[in-house]
Amino acid sequence: MPRFKIPEITVERLSIYLRAIKKFHHEEILSSQRLAELVGTSDGQVRKDLAYFGEFGVPGQGYKVGKLKGEISHILGLDREQRIALVGVGKLGSALLAYPGFKSEEFKIKAAFDNDPSKVGRTWQGVTIQDVKKIPQVISREKIDLGIITTPVPAAQQVANKLIEGGVKGILNFAPTRIVVPDHVKLRNVDLAIQLEGLSYFLTQVGP
Amino acid sequence: MPRFKIPEITVERLSIYLRAIKKFHHEEILSSQRLAELVGTSDGQVRKDLAYFGEFGVPGQGYKVGKLKGEISHILGLDREQRIALVGVGKLGSALLAYPGFKSEEFKIKAAFDNDPSKVGRTWQGVTIQDVKKIPQVISREKIDLGIITTPVPAAQQVANKLIEGGVKGILNFAPTRIVVPDHVKLRNVDLAIQLEGLSYFLTQVGP
Repeated sequence: MPRFKIPEITVERLSIYLRAIKKFHHEEILSSQRLAELVGTSDGQVRKDLAYFGEFGVPGQGYKVGKLKGEISHILGLDREQRIALVGVGKLGSALLAYPGFKSEEFKIKAAFDNDPSKVGRTWQGVTIQDVKKIPQVISREKIDLGIITTPVPAAQQVANKLIEGGVKGILNFAPTRIVVPDHVKLRNVDLAIQLEGLSYFLTQVGP
Repeated sequence: MPRFKIPEITVERLSIYLRAIKKFHHEEILSSQRLAELVGTSDGQVRKDLAYFGEFGVPGQGYKVGKLKGEISHILGLDREQRIALVGVGKLGSALLAYPGFKSEEFKIKAAFDNDPSKVGRTWQGVTIQDVKKIPQVISREKIDLGIITTPVPAAQQVANKLIEGGVKGILNFAPTRIVVPDHVKLRNVDLAIQLEGLSYFLTQVGP
């Protein structure tokens, strides 16, 4: 496992490579050109990204699909179960609980929390919603690694604090506000408006 | 307006710079170091990103906040209204209709569509839900630029086709499937699981 720091954008591309090669047979060999085409990047970029992790390639031919799948999965930590808790079972939270990408072999949502008494005790997508007051104890007891925050803005920081108190090592924050975490916790803010702005930029580049 | 192609990751960082500098006064001057700190990147990266667009800087001091705000907004096409339609008013769709970042001065959701007769005709977040059959005519009549797809997987491609038939120039796809669009339409797939995988990678980098 590499111990040096890899740029986040490279990590993101590894996820994309993995999605692309999952459609191929284990025994096939895929050239860097073909992989680049599949994900819409350059040949050189593929080779550079994969070079961070040592030698996957067969010189003059390409990458062995089976080996590449295994290595990328291992690098991304997808060869073991990741235990997740979600806080804030509103519209976005309940959509995410049902999101197919969050219910894979690797990612298991083990707990969900809300502060609305009418939701606490109900089961959604196989997960029973618990009171937010129980966050620290449940996170600790259930050995949960990752927290997802889908609360309204005013609750986000307090919820993050409780998740960290319980022992999560990473937080995915969907609340459109900046939250502060200590150095040992990794934070990712998902700002959906940035995606729209990227499209908006493109529209400035075409006609009328 | 620049006519050369800027990497998508740079466009994304421009959005992030814009968020950071919005908190500063119009008259202030911000050094590239300070801006880099605010968004968690390097000094050199900031200067490289902004150099794509000409000279914003005051040598030896930094960037004029007001000018930088205006220029980045212009580059991203955020100095004019973007008209948006959303298709699929399920949990994720209705969460996005209520998402603060999608209801800004620049982004206006002008139409929403669903195929469920019990939803058609209802109003949510100020937008009346219309039948998916009307997508092409409404997109065309309302001069909508961008489409957001939050339908289940089996409907995504057909919905994309209807949006394109109506004349959208960009599509933001949340359905976890690959859709195909012609060259003149820009497609962005939002894969929320990639965010989780990025955190998962980080957890492989910390003890034990």
